[in-house]
Amino acid sequence: MKGPSHLSDEGRVVALCGGVGGAKLALGLQHLLGERLTVVVNVADDFEHLGLHISPDLDTVLYTLGGLSDQQRGWGRSDETWNFMEALKEIGGQTWFSLGDRDMAMHVERTRRRLSGETLTAISIDIARRFGIRSNVLPITNNKLSTIVVSTEGELEFQRYFVGRRCEPAVKQIRFRGAESARLTQEVLQALDADDLRLIILCPSNPYLSIDPMLAVPGTTEKLRAARVPVVAISPIIGGQAIKGPTRKIMDELGLEATNREIARHYAGLIDGLIIDTTDAEGAADLGIDVHLAPTLMTELQSKIALAEHALMFGNSLRTKRKGQEKEPLSGGVS
Amino acid sequence: MKGPSHLSDEGRVVALCGGVGGAKLALGLQHLLGERLTVVVNVADDFEHLGLHISPDLDTVLYTLGGLSDQQRGWGRSDETWNFMEALKEIGGQTWFSLGDRDMAMHVERTRRRLSGETLTAISIDIARRFGIRSNVLPITNNKLSTIVVSTEGELEFQRYFVGRRCEPAVKQIRFRGAESARLTQEVLQALDADDLRLIILCPSNPYLSIDPMLAVPGTTEKLRAARVPVVAISPIIGGQAIKGPTRKIMDELGLEATNREIARHYAGLIDGLIIDTTDAEGAADLGIDVHLAPTLMTELQSKIALAEHALMFGNSLRTKRKGQEKEPLSGGVS
Repeated sequence: MKGPSHLSDEGRVVALCGGVGGAKLALGLQHLLGERLTVVVNVADDFEHLGLHISPDLDTVLYTLGGLSDQQRGWGRSDETWNFMEALKEIGGQTWFSLGDRDMAMHVERTRRRLSGETLTAISIDIARRFGIRSNVLPITNNKLSTIVVSTEGELEFQRYFVGRRCEPAVKQIRFRGAESARLTQEVLQALDADDLRLIILCPSNPYLSIDPMLAVPGTTEKLRAARVPVVAISPIIGGQAIKGPTRKIMDELGLEATNREIARHYAGLIDGLIIDTTDAEGAADLGIDVHLAPTLMTELQSKIALAEHALMFGNSLRTKRKGQEKEPLSGGVS
Repeated sequence: MKGPSHLSDEGRVVALCGGVGGAKLALGLQHLLGERLTVVVNVADDFEHLGLHISPDLDTVLYTLGGLSDQQRGWGRSDETWNFMEALKEIGGQTWFSLGDRDMAMHVERTRRRLSGETLTAISIDIARRFGIRSNVLPITNNKLSTIVVSTEGELEFQRYFVGRRCEPAVKQIRFRGAESARLTQEVLQALDADDLRLIILCPSNPYLSIDPMLAVPGTTEKLRAARVPVVAISPIIGGQAIKGPTRKIMDELGLEATNREIARHYAGLIDGLIIDTTDAEGAADLGIDVHLAPTLMTELQSKIALAEHALMFGNSLRTKRKGQEKEPLSGGVS
């Protein structure tokens, strides 16, 4: 039986992805695309902790695509235990950032391999293979890139803000330290330049904390603008709220309306289409961009696959529509 | 009720100690002496593994004195889990050296603190305090000191020989890399020079692998020779066999008889008396040194305390006997 045309298309897809929310869509995409999917992952949340190099978004993507992520807790590994943390507390160690016993293997081994000279890219590719992940998982850069939250409590490294202070300080500005000198990896460039590329997706991750740091790496926005294939974003906003995480709070603090209009404005010139939740249909035609309506709340696996299908379908329709056209903000339309 | 004289003596005791066997006696001594005991611990088994600084003997002593050691397994912590190792294996990490989840906290935190500039001594003192250990636990040195086993398979770092190769290669020679430039710590010197010191004990650890590296640190043998208090060793040999570990095998390979005579010869000039097992009484009078017979097999806590009492008693008797005498090999005697 031949599948629907958006599935039988043999082209490749690149998805730019942050942590939990983005990884859910990546899992749906992996089910449809397998090795034809490349997930390019934010590393600006990475930090040094207890002498270990920790890559929270890469881990979330690897655990999610490897079928190892915890569904209840919403982060980290399933079947996790916390004896390391308990023992660390006994001897007065820092316990503000929870590290599971199984999760520790990732941090210790990746730190060791980086210190021995391997790149984050090479390590990620190898671990994805060992986890049996069919899709490609790539960090956006092998260079140091750090999200700095300029807040009412001063400058905070991302994890200090996100985990240490539970997003409580009001955000005044967000900076990406190291972005100017960071470089897209050869592997990311190859994925974006692939002849059989069909679609680039911006996952429904936090635009300001998870997608923007990747856009801040020189070359990313140029690649998106010049792409011969559609670029589609999935809005992380449903009914004026973020599904998860501090997106809504941050938008408020930055003086932005928590609306799809604002998300469309934020990505203007970079994307060809925006997927917004079906419940937000009102006014969708006026966003000044092609819009596709779909249920964007991902709970069980089927809803992740369904949203992935919508993204592929939308991408196909945009490709057909704009064959031979210059990529420019269009008048819009809702599908 | 006033206890026996060897317990009511308020003087201090220094015990030089390796891993498991020595730590058992240290636990017995702690019960009798509390803060009047200083355990000086071998660090020549220390090694870097997975980017972590691991101090196996210090950990064994800290876990044992802190009541955290596993009784069945014989090493490591009780209530230990192994999920870190399992996850490490999944991603292709090195698994020849087992690291428990709780145990990992010690390695990660100590590595972090050392890299931040703290000495092994300061870290050990702090962790002992956090474990509620009443006695003093001190590494012999803060400098790098490594036992190298010159074997039929070439030069092996201690843990590679001991754990990695399970003591299988025949030992041709044992060297202590870094010994010449290592320094006794101020804390160890203070313990050995204390005015109220009453006894120095060489624990029933492997003389060649655990005690010798401490004796190789410049100043140790001089301190023992010049000590104004008795130095007593407990033989690790019972009936021509070592209780545990490779002592017997190594003695064979080095062409040494696995006898108390050989142990006495090995420590000649450094010790004033040797405690040997009651079952080895035959010929004890001919060892050329003061000998005390006691059950040296330590199983449950009571046997550890009992052997510790013997050591203190023996020390007292030697002190009385040799008041005002020069420390020289004596004609001997058995108590």
